[in-house]
Amino acid sequence: MTKSREIRLKSRPAGAPQLENFELATVDLAPPAPGQAQVKNLYMSVDPYMRGRMSDRPSYVPPFEIGSALQGGAVGEVVASSDDALKPGDLVSSMFGWREAFNADAKQLQKIEPHDLPPQAFLGVAGMPGLTAYVGLTRIAEMKAGDIVFVSAAAGAVGQIACQVARIKGCTVIGSAGGADKAAYVKSLGVDAVIDYKAEPDLKAALRRAAPKGIDVYFENVGGAHLEAALDGARIGARFALCGMIAGYNNEKPEPGPSNLMLIIGKRLRLQGFIVSDHFDLAPAFVKDVSGWIKSGELTYRETVDDGIEAAPGAFLKLFSGENMGKMLVKLS
Amino acid sequence: MTKSREIRLKSRPAGAPQLENFELATVDLAPPAPGQAQVKNLYMSVDPYMRGRMSDRPSYVPPFEIGSALQGGAVGEVVASSDDALKPGDLVSSMFGWREAFNADAKQLQKIEPHDLPPQAFLGVAGMPGLTAYVGLTRIAEMKAGDIVFVSAAAGAVGQIACQVARIKGCTVIGSAGGADKAAYVKSLGVDAVIDYKAEPDLKAALRRAAPKGIDVYFENVGGAHLEAALDGARIGARFALCGMIAGYNNEKPEPGPSNLMLIIGKRLRLQGFIVSDHFDLAPAFVKDVSGWIKSGELTYRETVDDGIEAAPGAFLKLFSGENMGKMLVKLS
Repeated sequence: MTKSREIRLKSRPAGAPQLENFELATVDLAPPAPGQAQVKNLYMSVDPYMRGRMSDRPSYVPPFEIGSALQGGAVGEVVASSDDALKPGDLVSSMFGWREAFNADAKQLQKIEPHDLPPQAFLGVAGMPGLTAYVGLTRIAEMKAGDIVFVSAAAGAVGQIACQVARIKGCTVIGSAGGADKAAYVKSLGVDAVIDYKAEPDLKAALRRAAPKGIDVYFENVGGAHLEAALDGARIGARFALCGMIAGYNNEKPEPGPSNLMLIIGKRLRLQGFIVSDHFDLAPAFVKDVSGWIKSGELTYRETVDDGIEAAPGAFLKLFSGENMGKMLVKLS
Repeated sequence: MTKSREIRLKSRPAGAPQLENFELATVDLAPPAPGQAQVKNLYMSVDPYMRGRMSDRPSYVPPFEIGSALQGGAVGEVVASSDDALKPGDLVSSMFGWREAFNADAKQLQKIEPHDLPPQAFLGVAGMPGLTAYVGLTRIAEMKAGDIVFVSAAAGAVGQIACQVARIKGCTVIGSAGGADKAAYVKSLGVDAVIDYKAEPDLKAALRRAAPKGIDVYFENVGGAHLEAALDGARIGARFALCGMIAGYNNEKPEPGPSNLMLIIGKRLRLQGFIVSDHFDLAPAFVKDVSGWIKSGELTYRETVDDGIEAAPGAFLKLFSGENMGKMLVKLS
């Protein structure tokens, strides 16, 4: 009988999550039943959106259950299969993260074509975060060559790709990140200007200096003061792709929104929220593009990797303290 | 020499406009120069957007100048013409409101085809307010039959038309208005539900009762608590046409926005601001539709008419105290 360790939700966080909201447990795995495969996870992803599922409130995905293993993106290797579609050694992605190994129906596993990329790339640059950047810019914001594009959380898993996709597509790019290290990293991605928002007393003024002509596209990962500054700096007809608002995820009481929403009317802005899973039809085109850009050296990316299932809760907390650079991952074997 | 009286901006309002911000003056009109016509105004319009031009701040139209006549929509009759395109008796619309008569270049005057409508209809139901409702629903919100549509300021010049266009196009309509009289008027337009927001301690709860399945389209005239309630009540993929946010026009200090903007992401909402003047290409189709609906009795409208140029500042103030029902007009001759 195979043993697998997994991280369960022990209690719902009030405000910022704490390590004591999580617990480690060990389970026995039977051999895979007919139609199933057994997968040993190589890497798992921690993502800001998971915070929402830790609260018991209606959202676009149901909340995690207390006492059950958490869920999230993972890539792993098939170690045993009772389904014709998969064989040992196959690389698969799944939503069965937060555990070392698992059995699942073959149809819940997506076989990965490696495209010469390392497996964990399919949790980051070539996976959901990369696709999120691609969808947000190309489909939601309808970005076109020559646009001035502002990306918040630009050193994060999604932001780092958004900055580079915008650059590759012929746009002027302004990235914002918190702290000198992250700002330097964003600069290294070939953007035109970087704002270290932790060093700026006035984000609006900083954006106006970085983009004196204003912005055509805003890729929103942060919310709050970033959204207010983007509204302030928007040009007529600018499009905002709203991907996340991490600044507010841990608020016990929701904070008021920006006081300049009226600019949406005078400037004829379009603000559109999106969820990447509505846009999986773009995934094949995206993986082809992104793997090509990585091979040609046009696109680079960073990962922050913690080691072992027991490190997963701490890795998740780093997303909110801003300790990660690029995609935050946990290596599981 | 013809005399004309006009209303000038005497001082910029701080917060809510007051009568003392305006002054009445009399000017002499020379006969129209070559290429010009002289117009006697029949009706002028007062509109909420004019408040923005009374402040000295950047916007999509320049501010009004102190000591100069205000501007705004008007319909009038050509009384003398030195241009071949116009002749005495022609009905024209212009932006030379707030005055009894004026000379203007023929190209600044738009000849009106009456379509069996009274002249003042071209300042309301068949003019900019009506076109605003039409553009916002059909082009910006991409409303389709079967949608559940929420209209704020539903007893106003724009809202009364928006409610009816939505009904005529096969939608379920919820209108919100302030006070029992206005609510009764909105109900008389054939909407499915009315919210008297002045009688509701909790606008979110009221909207959830009126639209238990949620809303697909929100026509935004108000901002503030209305926007918050619409975000709360929105269905996945709802579209918001942002036309105005009158609740905030007189604030000396901008008020914070709704605290639930994060719903834009989870619900994949689209919020889009618009200005009717970007969409004049729809005017011919609109006038054809609306005049047909009026003739068939499918669409009705109300006007609140004050009399004489000296009444114009007071008529404007009524927009903010909510004293007008339907389109607010001033009859000038």
